[in-house]
This record gives sequence, structure tokens and C-alpha cells, in this order.
Amino acid sequence: MQTMDLSHELAIGIDIGGTNTKWGIVNHRGEIVEKGEIPTDGHPTIDRFIEALHATLQPYMQRMGADSVFRGIGVGAPNGNYYKGTIEYAPNLHWKGIIPVTQLMTERFGLPCSLTNDANAAAVGEMMYGAARGMKDFIMITLGTGVGSGIVANGQLILGHDGFAGELGHTCIRPGGRLHWATGLRGSLETYCSATGIVLTAKELLENSKEDSTLRGISGEELNSKKIYECAVAGDPIAREVYRYTGQILGEALANFIMFSSPEAIILFGGVIKAGDLLMEPTREHMEANLLPIFQNKVKLVFSELKEADAAILGASALVWEIKD
Amino acid sequence: MQTMDLSHELAIGIDIGGTNTKWGIVNHRGEIVEKGEIPTDGHPTIDRFIEALHATLQPYMQRMGADSVFRGIGVGAPNGNYYKGTIEYAPNLHWKGIIPVTQLMTERFGLPCSLTNDANAAAVGEMMYGAARGMKDFIMITLGTGVGSGIVANGQLILGHDGFAGELGHTCIRPGGRLHWATGLRGSLETYCSATGIVLTAKELLENSKEDSTLRGISGEELNSKKIYECAVAGDPIAREVYRYTGQILGEALANFIMFSSPEAIILFGGVIKAGDLLMEPTREHMEANLLPIFQNKVKLVFSELKEADAAILGASALVWEIKD
Repeated sequence: MQTMDLSHELAIGIDIGGTNTKWGIVNHRGEIVEKGEIPTDGHPTIDRFIEALHATLQPYMQRMGADSVFRGIGVGAPNGNYYKGTIEYAPNLHWKGIIPVTQLMTERFGLPCSLTNDANAAAVGEMMYGAARGMKDFIMITLGTGVGSGIVANGQLILGHDGFAGELGHTCIRPGGRLHWATGLRGSLETYCSATGIVLTAKELLENSKEDSTLRGISGEELNSKKIYECAVAGDPIAREVYRYTGQILGEALANFIMFSSPEAIILFGGVIKAGDLLMEPTREHMEANLLPIFQNKVKLVFSELKEADAAILGASALVWEIKD
Repeated sequence: MQTMDLSHELAIGIDIGGTNTKWGIVNHRGEIVEKGEIPTDGHPTIDRFIEALHATLQPYMQRMGADSVFRGIGVGAPNGNYYKGTIEYAPNLHWKGIIPVTQLMTERFGLPCSLTNDANAAAVGEMMYGAARGMKDFIMITLGTGVGSGIVANGQLILGHDGFAGELGHTCIRPGGRLHWATGLRGSLETYCSATGIVLTAKELLENSKEDSTLRGISGEELNSKKIYECAVAGDPIAREVYRYTGQILGEALANFIMFSSPEAIILFGGVIKAGDLLMEPTREHMEANLLPIFQNKVKLVFSELKEADAAILGASALVWEIKD
């Protein structure tokens, strides 16, 4: 006797980044059974991009469709709007204006599609499969080229009335401070705690000091957060100060976020967290020092448990299980 | 033939403040049918306080209980914890430590009791009966002796994992700035935008300037935000600058809050808003100037539509309808 096996349902998770787009085929247990990537920026129009994505995925869908059902597509993207299924004015993508992504995906793939911003998708991935399993209140901060965030309260993503909530990277933490290269706002968290901001901090410290530093041997163009990290590990005092300062600013910002939504945990994610304790220790110190006593020594500050590439794919795929037929 | 009239259900709403406690008996339509107040600080213990409250309310309950049913008691209180039904270490109350308010109320009144912090209660009042009717995402900021807040997202109060969310008055808006008189933290919103903070701003401006001002004729002890407002209305330049500066700080803080939860509206509430446009205009200007474009010209910044005394009573009473029998 045959029984219907619902566990053979599959979801496609897609993480659209400025340079590359990662995709994964995910089963109901949160296992990525196939994955890959295609360039994002090699396609002059969104239609060509979706065409390329379809051409890549089609063979897998045909083969696996034999004994599984594809339930839908979930997409995480910068400036992705859950309510409208659109990407709107994303500064890091070369498709401009408002792009009706879910509509175009459904037309091409013949599957329902749901979309949210990349940081929200990563937060959902962490909630379902990572460090936030079982939590109803947490904040995910992604520290990469920019600073993104996904906020969960009462077990739900905070999307806001228009779907754009959670732009914590653009909150001001140093009034009148560093000018943001794209937004024109001053003193935002992203100008200090992104990989880009870390390089700016290093350049400022080098300019304002005469101390010896191996960083001085690296040309401005080649200086990046990874090299600064390597110099810090090797004991370079200016490189260490870069991470101490980054952690101070981040810790102060996290204290503010905690007094907003009182999360059980803050999960840090993204390339910058490779700095480990060099970043974590000053962050924790300044976070605790800026909290009211009722919040102190309560909030778990942890690194993501998911591989960076996987969190956004898993989170995006998780949107699929919520799609109403 | 008689039909059962469910509209005859009543709730008791109680707003515990540092000096006075306001109470109201509220019907299902949100009408306060009886109200009054008793001193908070005249009672050496919480038991005596609840005894006095009971003695005050008992005659009403007996009289009205004849043809109505009292469903329960809702309480708004500083540092009130919804999950535990306790007031915890409230700096403005003279009962110290952790006070099991809902338990004590239920024992004395024989009615179920629910409690949350005073700003959350006001936010619920605004959502059910005031400026936030029909909204699912908004932030209420109370500008009184201190600065409180209640945050609603996805139609629910943000309480956080421990019930203490929404302490926006203690978020830092000027790192290294003004020292808070009670928390010891520096640069918090409350140190600038509460009535207390407004007086401090006036004193600073008077000290750092030689300009003529009618404020100089008021002794330090008599100077309060109401007098500063009156001088500002009369055209006094320093008094006007006090409100401009207060609005600037508040506007910058609101921009940060908007990029967190993307609310449909921010509702300002409390004694300080009597300053009207003197406060509202600079607040709106600096709020908009500090937002990412996707948030600009979208968020309604409005004053509360409820009488100050009523919002917290109505909000507290609204908790009653949510009590599970």
C-alpha cells in the first residue's frame, strides 16, 4: 500500500546579492539538497536575470520533480518588500526603480513566489534552523559590506506598515559623525560597523597617529577588513584599535536596540564577524555598559550558527511554507 | 422576554503614577462612566495602597454591580511587567523591589487582574479609542516628567522576551552627553526631551549665553517647562531656542525609531506636548532630515487625541477584555 509522502515537498530559496545570486533547493527538514549561484550583475534587465535563473534551475526541477513537489520560491533581496513582492530602489543592484519580482518569477516558473529583504530572510533562517531556534524575540544584525538587520518580536518578523522595517544600519549612532557614501546621512551604524566602515576607521586612525603599523605598508586600494583583521591578530596596535572602536560603536547601538524590543538574543552574522573575539569582546562590554540595569546580563550576544551562504537561502526558502495556496 | 445584555460588562482601569493613581470604570464602548484618583505616595506599603483603592472603588462596584458585571482590573504602572504581573524596581515609586501587583489585586478585589507598563497602557488606549484607531504599527511616545514609550507592531504590543521592551526614553541619542539624574547613563532621550530635560536645556543655554531673557527673572527652583513655554510664546529667544533644540533631539530620535519598526504613525503624548507647534515643527523637520528616502513623508507625526488622564485608564481597562477566563 502506498501512502502520500508530504515530506517530499521542496522549496526554492534565492538570495539576490549585489554581485552574485545564490540559490538552493530545500526540503521540509531545512536541508539544502542542491545549491549553486549565478552572477547578478551580468544581466542587463531583470527579465534576462530571471531567464538565466530559470535556465539554471530547470534541469533540477525536471529531475527532482519526478518524485517531489515544488511548492514555491522564496526570495531574499536588498530593499525587498514583503507586502508588495517588489525590490524598490536598491542601491546595490543595477536594476533601477520598482521591480515586481514575485510577479515575474511566478510568470516564468509557474510557482508561487514570496519575497522579503535579505536580512529578514537571514533572520527567518536563523529562527527556523540556526541560533534563534525556538526564540520569539531576537534581532539579527548582518555585518557585511553594509549593515542589515532583521527583527523578530512575538514570533513574527517586524515588517512595519509598509514592509521596510529593520533598517538598523541606517540609524544614527554618532550625530554629526561620518558621512555615508550613499545615503548622505551622517553617523549611521553602517558608516562605522560595516566592512566598508572598518576600512574608513583604519584610514582615520592611520592619518591621526604617527604610530608604527603594518597597515601603513598596505595601499589604500588594497586595504580591506580582512587585512586589518590579520594585522590585528598579529598584534598591530592600530589594527587592534580599529576593532575595539568598531565594537564600541556596535555595542552602543545594540544597547539602544535592546531597549527598543528587549530581545532574548542578538545574533551577529556576515563577513565582519570573522574577527571573532576581537570584535565580540568590546561589543559586549559597551553593550552592557549602556543598558538600564533591568536589561543587563540577560541578552545573549552570539554569532550565527549558519554558514553565511546558507542562512539567506534557508530563510528565503522558509517563506515558501507560509505561502497561502 | 429578557435577553442577556453583554454590553453591561465593565472593566476597571487603573493608572499608577508616582504621585497620584487614577482609576476609571469603563464600559465596552470605551466610555469612562466613573473616575477618580487617590494619592499613590500616601501609603507606606502596597497592601495599604490596595486597601485604600478597594475602599474607594467598593461603593461603585456594589451600586453598579446590580445590573452590570465587573470583568476585571487592568493596571498601568511604571516598570510594570505584563508577563509577571509585577512592578519591578520602579524608581518613581516608594515601594521597592518586586511587587506582585496582580496577585494582590485579585486577592483583595476577587477579580482577575492584568498589568503592563504605563506607556504601553497608553498605547493600547490610543489604539482602541484614540489617534491610532485601526493602526497595526505605531509608536507612542510620552513626554512627561520622564520619557516613556509603547510600541505596537503587527497589531500587538512589543513586550520583548521579558516584558520590558519599549524603554525608548533611555536610548542614547547624544553619546557622552548629558548625565541622567537616576540611571547614570549619558545622553539618553529622557535627559533632553522630558520636562526635566527641558529645564536643564534652559539652564544650560542661560549659562552659556549673555542674551537677555525673561527666564533670567525666574529662580532655578521655580523654572519649569510650563514657564519656559509661556516665555517662548511671548517671544523670548532663549525659551524659543529651548524648544527648537528639544525638537531637534526628539526628531533625530524618532528617525531612528522609524528605521527600526517603520510605523504608520508616531503619537506624542504627555505634558510636554502642550508646547504645540513650538515643539512639533522642529521635531518634524529633524525627523524627516534624518530618514532614508524610503521612509520620508510617510509617517504621521501627531499628538494624542485622548485626554492625558484618560489614555492610560482606557488602555489599562482594555487589558481586561483580553484576560482569559
